[in-house]
Amino acid sequence: MNSNLVFQPVAVDSAARASVKGQKPVAIWLTGFSGAGKSTIANALELALVERGRHTYLLDGDNVRMGLCRDLGFSDADREENIRRVAEVARLFVDAGLIVITAFISPFQRDRAMAREVIGADAFVEVFIDTPLTECERRDPKGLYGKARSGLIRNFTGIDSAYEPPENPGIRIDTLEDDLLTAVQRILAYLEKRGI
Amino acid sequence: MNSNLVFQPVAVDSAARASVKGQKPVAIWLTGFSGAGKSTIANALELALVERGRHTYLLDGDNVRMGLCRDLGFSDADREENIRRVAEVARLFVDAGLIVITAFISPFQRDRAMAREVIGADAFVEVFIDTPLTECERRDPKGLYGKARSGLIRNFTGIDSAYEPPENPGIRIDTLEDDLLTAVQRILAYLEKRGI
Repeated sequence: MNSNLVFQPVAVDSAARASVKGQKPVAIWLTGFSGAGKSTIANALELALVERGRHTYLLDGDNVRMGLCRDLGFSDADREENIRRVAEVARLFVDAGLIVITAFISPFQRDRAMAREVIGADAFVEVFIDTPLTECERRDPKGLYGKARSGLIRNFTGIDSAYEPPENPGIRIDTLEDDLLTAVQRILAYLEKRGI
Repeated sequence: MNSNLVFQPVAVDSAARASVKGQKPVAIWLTGFSGAGKSTIANALELALVERGRHTYLLDGDNVRMGLCRDLGFSDADREENIRRVAEVARLFVDAGLIVITAFISPFQRDRAMAREVIGADAFVEVFIDTPLTECERRDPKGLYGKARSGLIRNFTGIDSAYEPPENPGIRIDTLEDDLLTAVQRILAYLEKRGI
Protein backbone atom coordinates (compact mmCIF):
# COMPACT_ATOMS: atom_id res chain seq x y z
CA MET A 1 0.00 0.00 0.00
CA ASN A 2 1.26 3.47 -0.89
CA SER A 3 2.54 4.86 2.37
CA ASN A 4 1.88 8.47 1.32
CA LEU A 5 -1.78 7.63 1.05
CA VAL A 6 -1.90 5.46 4.12
CA PHE A 7 -1.00 8.26 6.47
CA GLN A 8 -3.14 11.00 4.96
CA PRO A 9 -5.82 12.20 7.35
CA VAL A 10 -8.97 11.12 5.50
CA ALA A 11 -11.44 10.78 8.36
CA VAL A 12 -14.98 12.13 8.07
CA ASP A 13 -15.77 13.83 11.36
CA SER A 14 -19.02 14.53 13.17
CA ALA A 15 -19.26 18.11 11.87
CA ALA A 16 -18.90 16.89 8.27
CA ARG A 17 -21.61 14.29 8.75
CA ALA A 18 -23.99 16.77 10.38
CA SER A 19 -23.38 19.33 7.64
CA VAL A 20 -24.21 16.73 4.95
CA LYS A 21 -27.54 16.33 6.72
CA GLY A 22 -28.10 20.05 7.27
CA GLN A 23 -29.31 19.65 10.83
CA LYS A 24 -28.09 19.87 14.40
CA PRO A 25 -27.82 16.34 15.78
CA VAL A 26 -29.40 15.74 19.18
CA ALA A 27 -30.74 13.01 21.45
CA ILE A 28 -34.31 13.51 22.65
CA TRP A 29 -34.51 11.38 25.76
CA LEU A 30 -38.06 10.41 26.83
CA THR A 31 -38.51 9.10 30.37
CA GLY A 32 -41.62 8.01 32.27
CA PHE A 33 -43.59 5.03 33.55
CA SER A 34 -44.58 2.10 31.38
CA GLY A 35 -47.84 3.11 29.71
CA ALA A 36 -47.10 6.84 30.13
CA GLY A 37 -47.22 7.39 26.35
CA LYS A 38 -43.47 7.48 25.54
CA SER A 39 -43.64 5.28 22.44
CA THR A 40 -46.77 7.00 21.12
CA ILE A 41 -45.21 10.44 21.53
CA ALA A 42 -41.85 9.23 20.19
CA ASN A 43 -43.46 7.83 17.02
CA ALA A 44 -45.54 10.97 16.43
CA LEU A 45 -42.51 13.19 17.09
CA GLU A 46 -40.38 11.18 14.67
CA LEU A 47 -43.08 11.44 11.98
CA ALA A 48 -43.32 15.22 12.50
CA LEU A 49 -39.54 15.57 12.20
CA VAL A 50 -39.37 13.39 9.06
CA GLU A 51 -42.17 15.48 7.52
CA ARG A 52 -39.90 18.47 8.13
CA GLY A 53 -37.08 16.74 6.23
CA ARG A 54 -35.09 15.76 9.32
CA HIS A 55 -33.10 12.54 9.52
CA THR A 56 -34.16 10.69 12.61
CA TYR A 57 -33.95 7.40 14.40
CA LEU A 58 -35.98 5.94 17.22
CA LEU A 59 -34.45 3.70 19.87
CA ASP A 60 -37.02 1.86 21.97
CA GLY A 61 -37.68 -1.46 23.63
CA ASP A 62 -38.78 -2.99 20.34
CA ASN A 63 -35.47 -2.56 18.55
CA VAL A 64 -33.05 -2.60 21.52
CA ARG A 65 -34.40 -4.98 24.15
CA MET A 66 -34.78 -7.78 21.55
CA GLY A 67 -31.37 -7.10 19.99
CA LEU A 68 -28.45 -5.24 21.52
CA CYS A 69 -29.73 -5.75 25.09
CA ARG A 70 -31.37 -9.14 24.81
CA ASP A 71 -28.88 -10.52 27.34
CA LEU A 72 -30.24 -8.12 30.00
CA GLY A 73 -33.17 -8.44 32.40
CA PHE A 74 -34.83 -5.91 34.67
CA SER A 75 -32.74 -6.00 37.83
CA ASP A 76 -31.33 -2.63 38.90
CA ALA A 77 -27.89 -3.63 37.54
CA ASP A 78 -29.33 -4.77 34.21
CA ARG A 79 -31.46 -1.61 33.90
CA GLU A 80 -28.32 0.43 34.46
CA GLU A 81 -26.40 -1.52 31.78
CA ASN A 82 -29.39 -1.24 29.41
CA ILE A 83 -29.45 2.54 29.77
CA ARG A 84 -25.65 2.71 29.47
CA ARG A 85 -25.75 0.87 26.12
CA VAL A 86 -28.70 2.97 24.88
CA ALA A 87 -26.77 6.13 25.80
CA GLU A 88 -23.64 4.88 24.00
CA VAL A 89 -25.65 4.01 20.88
CA ALA A 90 -27.48 7.36 21.02
CA ARG A 91 -24.06 9.03 21.17
CA LEU A 92 -23.02 7.17 17.99
CA PHE A 93 -26.21 8.29 16.20
CA VAL A 94 -25.62 11.90 17.29
CA ASP A 95 -22.04 11.53 16.07
CA ALA A 96 -23.48 10.29 12.75
CA GLY A 97 -25.49 13.53 12.49
CA LEU A 98 -28.96 12.16 13.26
CA ILE A 99 -31.73 13.31 15.56
CA VAL A 100 -32.25 10.27 17.77
CA ILE A 101 -35.29 9.78 20.00
CA THR A 102 -35.07 7.31 22.88
CA ALA A 103 -38.14 5.88 24.59
CA PHE A 104 -37.20 3.95 27.71
CA ILE A 105 -38.58 4.11 31.24
CA SER A 106 -35.02 5.00 32.40
CA PRO A 107 -36.22 5.24 36.00
CA PHE A 108 -33.00 6.21 37.80
CA GLN A 109 -31.69 9.75 38.06
CA ARG A 110 -28.04 8.65 38.05
CA ASP A 111 -28.49 6.66 34.82
CA ARG A 112 -30.08 9.63 33.04
CA ALA A 113 -27.25 11.83 34.34
CA MET A 114 -24.79 9.28 32.90
CA ALA A 115 -26.63 9.38 29.55
CA ARG A 116 -26.41 13.17 29.54
CA GLU A 117 -22.68 12.95 30.18
CA VAL A 118 -22.05 10.25 27.54
CA ILE A 119 -24.05 12.06 24.86
CA GLY A 120 -22.95 15.55 25.90
CA ALA A 121 -25.19 18.10 27.64
CA ASP A 122 -25.47 20.28 24.51
CA ALA A 123 -26.94 17.40 22.50
CA PHE A 124 -29.18 15.98 25.26
CA VAL A 125 -32.84 16.96 25.66
CA GLU A 126 -34.64 15.32 28.56
CA VAL A 127 -38.42 15.00 28.12
CA PHE A 128 -40.38 13.84 31.15
CA ILE A 129 -43.60 12.09 30.08
CA ASP A 130 -45.29 12.81 33.40
CA THR A 131 -48.34 10.57 33.39
CA PRO A 132 -49.33 9.63 36.96
CA LEU A 133 -48.83 6.00 37.92
CA THR A 134 -52.55 5.59 38.67
CA GLU A 135 -53.40 6.66 35.12
CA CYS A 136 -50.72 4.37 33.58
CA GLU A 137 -52.10 1.48 35.62
CA ARG A 138 -55.67 2.34 34.55
CA ARG A 139 -54.63 2.34 30.85
CA ASP A 140 -52.37 -0.74 31.18
CA PRO A 141 -52.13 -1.08 27.37
CA LYS A 142 -50.02 -4.25 27.50
CA GLY A 143 -51.58 -5.75 30.64
CA LEU A 144 -48.22 -5.48 32.40
CA TYR A 145 -49.45 -3.70 35.55
CA GLY A 146 -51.98 -6.47 36.08
CA LYS A 147 -49.22 -9.06 35.83
CA ALA A 148 -46.93 -7.03 38.12
CA ARG A 149 -49.67 -6.64 40.76
CA SER A 150 -50.30 -10.37 40.70
CA GLY A 151 -46.58 -11.10 41.03
CA LEU A 152 -46.16 -12.61 37.54
CA ILE A 153 -43.64 -9.85 36.66
CA ARG A 154 -40.96 -8.75 39.14
CA ASN A 155 -38.98 -5.51 39.33
CA PHE A 156 -41.73 -3.55 37.57
CA THR A 157 -41.27 0.22 37.76
CA GLY A 158 -43.87 1.84 40.03
CA ILE A 159 -44.91 -1.46 41.60
CA ASP A 160 -41.81 -3.07 43.11
CA SER A 161 -39.06 -0.95 41.50
CA ALA A 162 -38.53 2.78 41.97
CA TYR A 163 -39.08 5.64 39.53
CA GLU A 164 -37.11 8.80 40.26
CA PRO A 165 -38.74 11.71 38.40
CA PRO A 166 -36.42 14.21 36.66
CA GLU A 167 -35.84 17.24 38.86
CA ASN A 168 -35.29 19.69 36.03
CA PRO A 169 -36.31 18.19 32.66
CA GLY A 170 -36.05 20.22 29.45
CA ILE A 171 -39.74 19.59 28.85
CA ARG A 172 -42.47 18.07 31.01
CA ILE A 173 -45.49 16.58 29.22
CA ASP A 174 -48.61 15.80 31.24
CA THR A 175 -50.66 13.50 29.01
CA LEU A 176 -53.76 14.20 31.13
CA GLU A 177 -53.52 17.86 30.04
CA ASP A 178 -51.87 17.75 26.61
CA ASP A 179 -53.19 15.67 23.72
CA LEU A 180 -50.74 14.01 21.33
CA LEU A 181 -50.53 16.86 18.82
CA THR A 182 -50.01 19.42 21.59
CA ALA A 183 -47.30 17.26 23.13
CA VAL A 184 -45.44 16.98 19.81
CA GLN A 185 -45.82 20.70 19.11
CA ARG A 186 -44.43 21.57 22.54
CA ILE A 187 -41.34 19.42 21.92
CA LEU A 188 -40.85 20.89 18.42
CA ALA A 189 -41.18 24.43 19.83
CA TYR A 190 -38.59 23.63 22.50
CA LEU A 191 -36.15 22.24 19.90
CA GLU A 192 -36.65 25.34 17.75
CA LYS A 193 -36.03 27.61 20.75
CA ARG A 194 -32.75 25.74 21.41
CA GLY A 195 -31.81 26.19 17.75
CA ILE A 196 -32.01 22.48 16.86
CA MET B 1 -54.60 11.97 25.66
CA ASN B 2 -56.95 11.69 22.70
CA SER B 3 -57.43 7.96 22.21
CA ASN B 4 -58.13 8.33 18.48
CA LEU B 5 -54.68 9.77 18.05
CA VAL B 6 -52.98 7.41 20.46
CA PHE B 7 -53.75 4.31 18.44
CA GLN B 8 -53.06 5.66 14.97
CA PRO B 9 -50.13 3.92 13.31
CA VAL B 10 -47.65 6.76 13.05
CA ALA B 11 -44.37 4.86 12.92
CA VAL B 12 -41.64 5.79 10.47
CA ASP B 13 -40.31 2.54 9.04
CA SER B 14 -36.98 1.55 7.56
CA ALA B 15 -38.15 2.04 3.95
CA ALA B 16 -39.32 5.58 4.74
CA ARG B 17 -36.00 6.44 6.39
CA ALA B 18 -33.99 5.02 3.49
CA SER B 19 -36.12 6.86 0.93
CA VAL B 20 -35.56 10.17 2.75
CA LYS B 21 -31.86 9.50 2.29
CA GLY B 22 -32.16 8.32 -1.31
CA GLN B 23 -29.80 5.39 -0.86
CA LYS B 24 -29.80 1.67 -0.21
CA PRO B 25 -28.65 1.10 3.38
CA VAL B 26 -25.96 -1.51 3.86
CA ALA B 27 -23.28 -2.67 6.28
CA ILE B 28 -19.79 -2.95 4.81
CA TRP B 29 -18.02 -5.36 7.14
CA LEU B 30 -14.19 -5.19 7.02
CA THR B 31 -12.28 -8.09 8.57
CA GLY B 32 -8.56 -8.80 8.81
CA PHE B 33 -5.56 -8.81 11.11
CA SER B 34 -4.56 -5.86 13.28
CA GLY B 35 -2.41 -3.65 11.03
CA ALA B 36 -3.97 -5.05 7.83
CA GLY B 37 -5.22 -1.62 6.82
CA LYS B 38 -8.91 -1.89 7.83
CA SER B 39 -9.17 1.57 9.44
CA THR B 40 -7.20 3.25 6.64
CA ILE B 41 -9.42 1.69 3.98
CA ALA B 42 -12.58 2.31 6.05
CA ASN B 43 -11.76 6.03 6.42
CA ALA B 44 -10.91 6.45 2.72
CA LEU B 45 -14.04 4.53 1.71
CA GLU B 46 -16.22 6.67 3.98
CA LEU B 47 -14.72 9.84 2.52
CA ALA B 48 -15.35 8.58 -1.04
CA LEU B 49 -18.97 7.77 -0.18
CA VAL B 50 -19.55 11.15 1.51
CA GLU B 51 -18.07 12.89 -1.55
CA ARG B 52 -20.75 11.04 -3.55
CA GLY B 53 -23.46 12.44 -1.25
CA ARG B 54 -23.99 9.23 0.71
CA HIS B 55 -24.86 9.22 4.40
CA THR B 56 -22.40 7.03 6.19
CA TYR B 57 -21.13 6.04 9.59
CA LEU B 58 -17.98 4.26 10.65
CA LEU B 59 -17.90 1.88 13.60
CA ASP B 60 -14.42 1.00 14.77
CA GLY B 61 -12.39 0.36 17.86
CA ASP B 62 -12.04 4.07 18.53
CA ASN B 63 -15.75 4.77 18.96
CA VAL B 64 -16.96 1.35 20.16
CA ARG B 65 -14.23 -0.22 22.29
CA MET B 66 -13.99 2.93 24.45
CA GLY B 67 -17.77 3.32 24.74
CA LEU B 68 -20.41 0.68 24.14
CA CYS B 69 -17.96 -2.20 24.65
CA ARG B 70 -15.66 -0.75 27.27
CA ASP B 71 -16.73 -3.49 29.69
CA LEU B 72 -15.28 -6.13 27.35
CA GLY B 73 -11.77 -7.52 27.00
CA PHE B 74 -10.18 -9.77 24.37
CA SER B 75 -11.03 -13.28 25.55
CA ASP B 76 -12.89 -15.40 22.97
CA ALA B 77 -16.17 -14.83 24.86
CA ASP B 78 -15.62 -11.06 25.04
CA ARG B 79 -14.65 -10.90 21.34
CA GLU B 80 -17.87 -12.73 20.53
CA GLU B 81 -19.95 -10.31 22.63
CA ASN B 82 -18.09 -7.34 21.10
CA ILE B 83 -18.94 -8.50 17.57
CA ARG B 84 -22.54 -9.27 18.61
CA ARG B 85 -23.01 -5.69 19.85
CA VAL B 86 -21.31 -4.21 16.78
CA ALA B 87 -23.61 -6.30 14.56
CA GLU B 88 -26.69 -5.17 16.51
CA VAL B 89 -25.64 -1.51 16.29
CA ALA B 90 -24.84 -1.89 12.57
CA ARG B 91 -28.35 -3.33 12.14
CA LEU B 92 -29.80 -0.21 13.81
CA PHE B 93 -27.79 2.07 11.50
CA VAL B 94 -28.95 0.11 8.44
CA ASP B 95 -32.51 0.36 9.78
CA ALA B 96 -31.93 4.12 10.06
CA GLY B 97 -31.09 4.19 6.35
CA LEU B 98 -27.31 4.71 6.59
CA ILE B 99 -24.37 3.04 4.92
CA VAL B 100 -22.36 1.79 7.89
CA ILE B 101 -18.75 0.63 7.64
CA THR B 102 -17.35 -1.59 10.39
CA ALA B 103 -13.62 -2.05 10.95
CA PHE B 104 -12.94 -4.80 13.48
CA ILE B 105 -10.58 -7.78 13.33
CA SER B 106 -13.67 -10.03 13.81
CA PRO B 107 -11.49 -13.14 13.64
CA PHE B 108 -14.09 -15.89 14.03
CA GLN B 109 -16.16 -17.27 11.16
CA ARG B 110 -19.17 -18.00 13.36
CA ASP B 111 -19.28 -14.41 14.67
CA ARG B 112 -19.21 -12.96 11.14
CA ALA B 113 -21.96 -15.44 10.17
CA MET B 114 -23.95 -14.19 13.18
CA ALA B 115 -23.40 -10.58 12.06
CA ARG B 116 -24.62 -11.45 8.57
CA GLU B 117 -27.74 -13.02 10.07
CA VAL B 118 -28.44 -10.11 12.47
CA ILE B 119 -27.97 -7.46 9.77
CA GLY B 120 -29.60 -9.51 7.00
CA ALA B 121 -27.69 -11.10 4.11
CA ASP B 122 -29.03 -8.57 1.56
CA ALA B 123 -27.55 -5.66 3.53
CA PHE B 124 -24.26 -7.33 4.49
CA VAL B 125 -21.08 -6.94 2.44
CA GLU B 126 -18.05 -8.81 3.77
CA VAL B 127 -14.68 -7.33 2.79
CA PHE B 128 -11.61 -9.38 3.62
CA ILE B 129 -8.57 -7.13 4.07
CA ASP B 130 -6.17 -9.94 3.27
CA THR B 131 -2.79 -8.63 4.37
CA PRO B 132 -0.48 -11.51 5.39
CA LEU B 133 0.35 -11.73 9.07
CA THR B 134 4.08 -11.35 8.35
CA GLU B 135 3.42 -8.03 6.60
CA CYS B 136 1.11 -6.79 9.43
CA GLU B 137 3.80 -7.70 11.93
CA ARG B 138 6.44 -5.96 9.83
CA ARG B 139 4.32 -2.76 9.69
CA ASP B 140 3.18 -3.00 13.35
CA PRO B 141 1.86 0.61 13.25
CA LYS B 142 0.84 0.62 16.92
CA GLY B 143 3.67 -1.57 18.23
CA LEU B 144 1.11 -4.19 19.29
CA TYR B 145 2.76 -7.21 17.66
CA GLY B 146 5.97 -6.41 19.47
CA LYS B 147 4.10 -6.34 22.78
CA ALA B 148 2.21 -9.54 21.91
CA ARG B 149 5.45 -11.39 20.99
CA SER B 150 7.02 -10.32 24.28
CA GLY B 151 3.93 -11.46 26.22
CA LEU B 152 2.84 -7.96 27.30
CA ILE B 153 -0.47 -8.42 25.45
CA ARG B 154 -2.40 -11.70 25.59
CA ASN B 155 -5.03 -13.13 23.24
CA PHE B 156 -3.62 -11.20 20.29
CA THR B 157 -4.99 -12.32 16.93
CA GLY B 158 -2.33 -14.11 14.86
CA ILE B 159 0.00 -14.58 17.82
CA ASP B 160 -1.88 -16.47 20.53
CA SER B 161 -5.46 -16.16 19.24
CA ALA B 162 -6.81 -17.56 15.96
CA TYR B 163 -7.88 -15.77 12.79
CA GLU B 164 -10.29 -17.68 10.57
CA PRO B 165 -10.20 -16.15 7.07
CA PRO B 166 -13.53 -15.70 5.25
CA GLU B 167 -14.19 -18.59 2.89
CA ASN B 168 -16.26 -16.63 0.42
CA PRO B 169 -16.00 -12.86 1.06
CA GLY B 170 -17.82 -10.36 -1.17
CA ILE B 171 -14.49 -8.68 -1.85
CA ARG B 172 -10.91 -9.62 -1.06
CA ILE B 173 -8.35 -6.82 -0.87
CA ASP B 174 -4.66 -7.70 -0.90
CA THR B 175 -2.89 -4.55 0.29
CA LEU B 176 0.41 -5.87 -1.10
CA GLU B 177 -1.15 -5.72 -4.58
CA ASP B 178 -3.72 -2.92 -4.37
CA ASP B 179 -2.89 0.60 -3.23
CA LEU B 180 -5.42 2.57 -1.19
CA LEU B 181 -7.20 4.22 -4.12
CA THR B 182 -7.48 0.91 -5.98
CA ALA B 183 -8.86 -0.78 -2.87
CA VAL B 184 -11.54 1.91 -2.45
CA GLN B 185 -12.42 1.85 -6.14
CA ARG B 186 -12.83 -1.93 -6.07
CA ILE B 187 -15.23 -1.70 -3.12
CA LEU B 188 -17.21 1.11 -4.79
CA ALA B 189 -17.42 -0.91 -8.03
CA TYR B 190 -18.68 -3.93 -6.10
CA LEU B 191 -21.35 -1.83 -4.33
CA GLU B 192 -22.46 -0.38 -7.67
CA LYS B 193 -22.67 -3.85 -9.21
CA ARG B 194 -24.90 -4.94 -6.32
CA GLY B 195 -27.06 -1.85 -6.89
CA ILE B 196 -26.16 -0.15 -3.62
